Amino acid sequence: MTGIAIRQNDTSHVMVGVDDVFHMALQVLLNAGLSPEQAEPVARVITAGERDECFSHGLYRLPGCVETIKSPKFVPDAVPNIVETSAAVVHADAAYGYSLLAFDRALSIVERKTRSVGVCILAINNCFHFSALWPEIEAMTERGLAAIAMTPSHSWVAPAGGTRPVLGTNPIAFGWPRGKERPYVFDFATSAIARGDIALHKIGGKPIPAGWAVDSDGNSTTDAAVALSGAMLTFGGHKGSALSTMIELLAGPLIGDMTSMQSMAFDGGIKAAPCHGELIIAFDPELLGGGTSTANHESAEALFAAFTDQAARLPSQRRYEARERSMKYGVRVARELYDRIQSLLMDVQ
Amino acid sequence: MTGIAIRQNDTSHVMVGVDDVFHMALQVLLNAGLSPEQAEPVARVITAGERDECFSHGLYRLPGCVETIKSPKFVPDAVPNIVETSAAVVHADAAYGYSLLAFDRALSIVERKTRSVGVCILAINNCFHFSALWPEIEAMTERGLAAIAMTPSHSWVAPAGGTRPVLGTNPIAFGWPRGKERPYVFDFATSAIARGDIALHKIGGKPIPAGWAVDSDGNSTTDAAVALSGAMLTFGGHKGSALSTMIELLAGPLIGDMTSMQSMAFDGGIKAAPCHGELIIAFDPELLGGGTSTANHESAEALFAAFTDQAARLPSQRRYEARERSMKYGVRVARELYDRIQSLLMDVQ
Repeated sequence: MTGIAIRQNDTSHVMVGVDDVFHMALQVLLNAGLSPEQAEPVARVITAGERDECFSHGLYRLPGCVETIKSPKFVPDAVPNIVETSAAVVHADAAYGYSLLAFDRALSIVERKTRSVGVCILAINNCFHFSALWPEIEAMTERGLAAIAMTPSHSWVAPAGGTRPVLGTNPIAFGWPRGKERPYVFDFATSAIARGDIALHKIGGKPIPAGWAVDSDGNSTTDAAVALSGAMLTFGGHKGSALSTMIELLAGPLIGDMTSMQSMAFDGGIKAAPCHGELIIAFDPELLGGGTSTANHESAEALFAAFTDQAARLPSQRRYEARERSMKYGVRVARELYDRIQSLLMDVQ
Repeated sequence: MTGIAIRQNDTSHVMVGVDDVFHMALQVLLNAGLSPEQAEPVARVITAGERDECFSHGLYRLPGCVETIKSPKFVPDAVPNIVETSAAVVHADAAYGYSLLAFDRALSIVERKTRSVGVCILAINNCFHFSALWPEIEAMTERGLAAIAMTPSHSWVAPAGGTRPVLGTNPIAFGWPRGKERPYVFDFATSAIARGDIALHKIGGKPIPAGWAVDSDGNSTTDAAVALSGAMLTFGGHKGSALSTMIELLAGPLIGDMTSMQSMAFDGGIKAAPCHGELIIAFDPELLGGGTSTANHESAEALFAAFTDQAARLPSQRRYEARERSMKYGVRVARELYDRIQSLLMDVQ
């Protein structure tokens, strides 16, 4: 493999440039048989995760992506079908490829409709989903739009008052454009913690905090392996559970797609990335603000200033700082993961 | 006052029929100088709160409504101005009356637009707001629509990592229509608890649990009075704080209206109900589901069954049970509150 600049700083990690992360990820995906059209946005989002030090959505996901690509229900050369259902709705059928190409193909249509009528729903259907939602949210804020995104996942999480898994980890993300400033963006799982983080604890042999999960009898556990075979819990008790249920309904049955339970059944034990729908709601602050957008922008900035004036961090601050660092110095990849990816690079189909 | 059937069961409470709660509330509001058009929906929503045993949004709010009606910035005979801004957006200017008449006047327009293009934003501006959001959400589900509603309030809540109040209690509500079944509805404050509940603890002389609030130096407190002059906390740590911030932005600057900080400043210490905006997003499951609505309905029902099969309650269950009880037996009003309302009934302007 050429074109990858490596600078070793210790034996346990490898320094890799951000561009090289992209090329490495892209080549692994192409080797696994993913079409170039599908592979490019996936490699881009994995690179963004690694760059922003969201490690559970970075290179760590690459081996799982390869497994998904090889799974029988995944379509490696899927071509999304974008339909303008109404003045305010776009349906993007991902045709059993990854969600990201469908999103990319729909984006400019969603932008146009949102500006035209003030709000637009993007319903992505039949998509395999492994990625964080903030890269899509950032794509919206770069266009001056506010947006909410959400997806179900697989039924790993017990509802409040229950002990058996029904809900997905069901992430919700939101973004608000701030002109020249980096956008206000959050992206969180409605489970107490992302499933990837429990998996990382298992790999690292570390106990998980109480409150993240229960065992298969509904008892609290700090064992990551037991948690993964039991049920995760939502954040925020019954409120988090309600929010997670809303996400099941809006990004599932509302748009003619699967709940987390159905997606788990569809997977049939293969353990590919979850296949389901994704809902994005885009808002145009210009149209909705009724011609007072400068004052509205100032109101929002005063809100953010009231946070930062008392040293309360805005949600994506750490990510933006990591981004600057990574763009300057590259990213630090664990030797074990790096070696695993190198072996995937050799593994040409 | 005639037409109010009272059945005493103990000396500390008074039993009142649901219809009589409505007439009592309506007369108090009219006596305070509210126009009949404004008063009817307010009395209806107060009655719904009392009927469903959401006491913090029931008759308990009536004296506060009277104070608000008499406050200098409130317009007791406000006539809402409804504008169809686009195919998917309705702006309802409440003209500094209560939010509820503006909602009522916009409802059929929102319904028509949602069916036509699949999604509709209702932005209510310049409204005084004291009510729970679920009555509006139920009005949507009765029409076969799913919906999200949210509002800011007054800046009583510290953001995660901060100690000074910036955010409102910022409720969010969601509803999903279930055909012949009662709808799936939740409605919660993104503060750890509703401010009304802390006020009820203060009135009752009861301590509040740790985690609800901090004193003005940022230390945890269990004293309800200290909490009310310090800062409340959000539910769910940084995730709840992020969600609350989203509500500030979407139901505030996005629609050209005030944040909780601005609403607090607008109030100028009068302590009327907060004046700000409200955002409702309505969804049509028929159009968005792409012609598979029967299967989608079944998917959602299977999700709910997976909750109730393991004895996890759906969010509004307790409210629906209270409703049945109240319709049969009437509601039980604390003698002190009842007497206070009786004195307001005598207080004809």
